[in-house]
Amino acid sequence: MCKNSEYRLDDLQINNLKLYQNPKWFCFGMDSVLLANFAANYVKKNSFVFDLCTGSGVVAILLQEKAQVKKIIGVEALENICDMARESIKYNNLCEKIEILNCNINDIEKSYYDKVDCITVNPPYMKENSSLKNENEYLKIARHEILCTLSDIINISSKLLKTGGKFFMVHQTNRIDEIIRLLYDNNMSVKEIKFIYPFEGKNSNLCLIYAAKSKGGYVKVLPPLVIYDSSGEYTCEALKYYGGMKPCAK
Amino acid sequence: MCKNSEYRLDDLQINNLKLYQNPKWFCFGMDSVLLANFAANYVKKNSFVFDLCTGSGVVAILLQEKAQVKKIIGVEALENICDMARESIKYNNLCEKIEILNCNINDIEKSYYDKVDCITVNPPYMKENSSLKNENEYLKIARHEILCTLSDIINISSKLLKTGGKFFMVHQTNRIDEIIRLLYDNNMSVKEIKFIYPFEGKNSNLCLIYAAKSKGGYVKVLPPLVIYDSSGEYTCEALKYYGGMKPCAK
Repeated sequence: MCKNSEYRLDDLQINNLKLYQNPKWFCFGMDSVLLANFAANYVKKNSFVFDLCTGSGVVAILLQEKAQVKKIIGVEALENICDMARESIKYNNLCEKIEILNCNINDIEKSYYDKVDCITVNPPYMKENSSLKNENEYLKIARHEILCTLSDIINISSKLLKTGGKFFMVHQTNRIDEIIRLLYDNNMSVKEIKFIYPFEGKNSNLCLIYAAKSKGGYVKVLPPLVIYDSSGEYTCEALKYYGGMKPCAK
Repeated sequence: MCKNSEYRLDDLQINNLKLYQNPKWFCFGMDSVLLANFAANYVKKNSFVFDLCTGSGVVAILLQEKAQVKKIIGVEALENICDMARESIKYNNLCEKIEILNCNINDIEKSYYDKVDCITVNPPYMKENSSLKNENEYLKIARHEILCTLSDIINISSKLLKTGGKFFMVHQTNRIDEIIRLLYDNNMSVKEIKFIYPFEGKNSNLCLIYAAKSKGGYVKVLPPLVIYDSSGEYTCEALKYYGGMKPCAK
């Protein structure tokens, strides 16, 4: 049993999986759940997966549960957060399946290049100098491109992936043009995009991207997903997409 | 009254506007109506507009009706089609507002460069060598990039537009990544995208793009538009978006 008194043990609401979180740092939101469920539609059993910017490890744990992959390496720059993620992995008896690597994504060993089947990433959404940053250091790093930029993420992903390997990212819709250009510049092509809308009639706030390390081909824009109905309850569509889990409010 | 017996005079279902079409060539579809109505949300009165690949002039005529612009120049490469578009313009008494230029878009006079407030374009959707082309010459040219490519369209649009000028295009969603990259490469940035879905639960087939001749900024992905309900009738949303016009099936 983990002794860190600052941790909170949360129920992931699927097969008794639990997750340690520190409410002073950053708690996962529905974007992580959407990403894990989206990627699980495509990732094959026995895949070798990297989960970049893994944080608490929530995406890695959910993806492992849903897709039964061979191995996931979660990469996290902050040592304290790595320790917490490792506690969750131990708690869920997933040590053989999920490993946490404590390094900046830009420093991942070259021996992994061209070896990875799939990458998942829920990165910091905001440019380093955008918006107010009156937050603690952990929140700043989780939300802003301080330790790595979108360009870093896509660049290292292209290096890690095998040819034809799959890349899954959740990000803010308002950066979709930059995402598409960076993928192309790094020898990847967008295969599918799913736009997420908070409410019917509102603009999309998030998008799920599936790209591949390959050139060419056409893009599919999948049916939209609306999260809340007009009374603020989750739509049936959203609950279904979460695969039975109740999504967490961010 | 126009004497060409091959023409058919169609009612545009808005303020008694009519349009000559030749059923042997290419008849406009809902994409043209969507484009005109989309652009009309943004185009200011007294704008100087170019409508590229104008064909029968349907987008120019609808946009003029809805946005009361100063002048629209419709550019069309095929002389026969220019003649027909001019007949429609005469019929609707719009000769002072809409002019048809018979040339390939790549040959537009340089004197127009940096002078245009807005561009609309409903281009051929398919790459020259894509899919079967067992069609007559008019249909081939309307559907395939034979006389101009997407790259040509975006390139000339950037030259024609003033700084900050607006570009509106309808295109197939599956080329959205290429569209975004070409806009960026031609000093334009995507401002807003509206994805069109034929049915709920299906992938998007068309998209409406609003870009500007400017750099940077964030993209808005507008609420999706679903065209048909499950019984094949137009959705209320679609009818509303068409602004009272009954959209034409393509």
